[in-house]
Amino acid sequence: MRPLPGNELCYLSIREASQLLRRRKISPVELLNATLERIERLNPELNAFITIAAERALEDARRAQREISRGKNRGPLHGIPLPIKDNIETQGIRTTAGSKILSHFIPDRDADVVSALRQAGAVIIGKTNLHEFAYGITNENPHYGAARNPWDTTRVSGGSSGGSAVAVASGLGFGSVGTDTGGSIRIPAALCGIVGLKPTFGRVSTRGVVPLSVSLDHVGPLARSVDDVSLLLATISSKEHPFRAAAASEPKGKSRRARFTLGWPRNFFFDRVDDEILAAIEAAVKLLEKRGAIVRQISLSHIADSAGAGTNIALAEALNFHQSSGFYPARANEYGPDVRARLEQGAKISAADYLHALGERPRIAAEFNAALAEVDAIVAPSAPIPAPRIGETVVRIRGEEETVRSALVRVSRPANFTGHPALSIPCGTTSEGMPIGLQLIGSHWNEARLLEIATLYESETDWHKRRPS
Amino acid sequence: MRPLPGNELCYLSIREASQLLRRRKISPVELLNATLERIERLNPELNAFITIAAERALEDARRAQREISRGKNRGPLHGIPLPIKDNIETQGIRTTAGSKILSHFIPDRDADVVSALRQAGAVIIGKTNLHEFAYGITNENPHYGAARNPWDTTRVSGGSSGGSAVAVASGLGFGSVGTDTGGSIRIPAALCGIVGLKPTFGRVSTRGVVPLSVSLDHVGPLARSVDDVSLLLATISSKEHPFRAAAASEPKGKSRRARFTLGWPRNFFFDRVDDEILAAIEAAVKLLEKRGAIVRQISLSHIADSAGAGTNIALAEALNFHQSSGFYPARANEYGPDVRARLEQGAKISAADYLHALGERPRIAAEFNAALAEVDAIVAPSAPIPAPRIGETVVRIRGEEETVRSALVRVSRPANFTGHPALSIPCGTTSEGMPIGLQLIGSHWNEARLLEIATLYESETDWHKRRPS
Repeated sequence: MRPLPGNELCYLSIREASQLLRRRKISPVELLNATLERIERLNPELNAFITIAAERALEDARRAQREISRGKNRGPLHGIPLPIKDNIETQGIRTTAGSKILSHFIPDRDADVVSALRQAGAVIIGKTNLHEFAYGITNENPHYGAARNPWDTTRVSGGSSGGSAVAVASGLGFGSVGTDTGGSIRIPAALCGIVGLKPTFGRVSTRGVVPLSVSLDHVGPLARSVDDVSLLLATISSKEHPFRAAAASEPKGKSRRARFTLGWPRNFFFDRVDDEILAAIEAAVKLLEKRGAIVRQISLSHIADSAGAGTNIALAEALNFHQSSGFYPARANEYGPDVRARLEQGAKISAADYLHALGERPRIAAEFNAALAEVDAIVAPSAPIPAPRIGETVVRIRGEEETVRSALVRVSRPANFTGHPALSIPCGTTSEGMPIGLQLIGSHWNEARLLEIATLYESETDWHKRRPS
Repeated sequence: MRPLPGNELCYLSIREASQLLRRRKISPVELLNATLERIERLNPELNAFITIAAERALEDARRAQREISRGKNRGPLHGIPLPIKDNIETQGIRTTAGSKILSHFIPDRDADVVSALRQAGAVIIGKTNLHEFAYGITNENPHYGAARNPWDTTRVSGGSSGGSAVAVASGLGFGSVGTDTGGSIRIPAALCGIVGLKPTFGRVSTRGVVPLSVSLDHVGPLARSVDDVSLLLATISSKEHPFRAAAASEPKGKSRRARFTLGWPRNFFFDRVDDEILAAIEAAVKLLEKRGAIVRQISLSHIADSAGAGTNIALAEALNFHQSSGFYPARANEYGPDVRARLEQGAKISAADYLHALGERPRIAAEFNAALAEVDAIVAPSAPIPAPRIGETVVRIRGEEETVRSALVRVSRPANFTGHPALSIPCGTTSEGMPIGLQLIGSHWNEARLLEIATLYESETDWHKRRPS
């Protein structure tokens, strides 16, 4: 085999790179070096990384190289360079959570997901940019700068796992692990044109993750293909809730027929969506219908109630973490103004409101469950708008004004409230070339079904193969 | 065997009554009738019962009689008349929770503990008086009257499981099941001179119990002997956390030696205790020391912090239940003034304070755990004062004034906060003849050790054999 140029190497899928590593066509050190060179070239503009752990990564890659050359096989992540969101603790590698307060924090343990990735032989190449303390959705970070959208660097990447999405979309890593409290994996995945999965609440351990809101926090994978997301999920799922990745996807002909039912929500999810995004979602659903999927209208009349309830939970739990860690109010002046304002707002939530909000979950989850008893997945946009410009705080959707923050999380956060798994997959671009994400929401613990549907869609389209120039 | 007079029948231990039933020396219907006659005679003054379920109990007793005569043996509770605290749902039998709001509530299911008791063949004879919604510690109930202390009917029984304690102490039932959120089993047990156990948090299901504070609520047994408490616990423990009662206690000679260590807390538990109570606890510990127990001073310097934290949790969770059930504020005027005032106070607790309080539990539990790694049980009073007079709101302890409410729960509620099992056993009387309770607090899930220590103490003393005249 002739050597692949760096660009092509860096855009291999995890599955492809793994096969080349296993057959010793490339080595873990070569793969790492190609990735590090690309990071060096592109990160100054994109600002995807807060910390690049080149030396530590080189050690890991060398170990993987020795193991592979001895015939030891740790599975598909063995020797694969992965960046990790910087609110996930990495032993010996600085973990800032995007904050000034933790700017010198070097954990003495790995988060459970990082242990699992290391055990699987992954090479942790660095820590990706995020909204400060993951408490925001644009990744405009006052301490480390905005993670810039690789499709248009005047635009945000989305947050809070923006750095992870930028890195993966730009070939600065083969996949990443992020966190999602209100859409923080799915939104940047959608805005940057990659695949992101928020698993079922409880599937992936949050131990060693700097918490935002313990009742809503989820850890999950971002990657350039459904198959790669599935491989990552299989590795990071907890022992108590294991997930087995499907076997390598076979080449699929147009003849393959869908055998599933999609639910199109009459309420809430399509209430105020950008025209081009609505058209892309409709086209995606039409395509799946042509391949045999059945589409049903479904009714979710209480789902809107989850917004206020989820906000109260997050406000209260976030404040509790920042108080009990001793960060707030003692170091209030070290927070960015948006996060500080939200902590101040948290003090206004009463315990009764908080407990009431928690008590709303079964009722609203039951509504999803009733719909999901009839359909395999609920379709929605991942976000109702494409990536806004950096600095923009208000958008206009179909003539109505809405804050960027409210618009971005509006259709992603219900699945955090109810704990249902939800996935974002690229399904189009706007006239300005910005990626659009299709959201699929599935039954608790049935990530497999969501990934199966997404795999079929992916096999019929090329959206996931587009690369930012 | 010559027939036992009613009094003697009604004061048999569960173990003794069970043996007589098994040998058909008495029948379940005879045992029930003796109990019902006694209730008819004594309850008008004592006010232990809110509902007497004579007809339903007779059906149950007849069924037990048929089963026993066919040789079917459901175990030591088969055919035994038991009253149940009236915040525990009983299918077909009114369950008021001591409230006006639920004064006509007839549940269509049994609470888990009631199912377990019925399965074991127990005869549910009625529902016992309690503080309104279990939200108070004196059992001065504005809707059903005070449950009166059988040792002096001008005094309170203690609460909130006062009716259960009065019934058991007076031979109006062989044992009972109550609830304990801040001491509500141990306090009335101590004030009425019987044994009461708050098990480890999670040992006994609270499903079907009208909640007071879900993080602090425990269900547990009250009886006239440690052995009977143990039999009841074995029956009501959940399948996930089973408890096996020790075999029937053998007769114990003075030669039996203790092989355990008791912790005497330097802090908190003896800070402000009535002189006669302190003397009784000291005498009890001395007696155990003479029998071979080792006594160590232990330090519990943070335990006082549990008071405010526990109060915040209870205030918030109680309000949440009363709001989400639709009772409050809609029917605020149907509450007694004390409970209503506490619900009003609940609205002032912020979510951050509530979450902070929950977060304090591991720290304070760790302090108990550290002590309990060195000793088998921590000794304390069950309550720092004997039963106050009905209507009394302030007491003077060693010259200092304290509200009755605060004094009564002060040393019992830490074990609710941390979930440790805690037992109250009679250990003396005041100069006015009022019972005194010794509290033993043990390691999580190790009720067996507490009961073993209590059994030894009981075998050396006659306090548990005293009967109110």
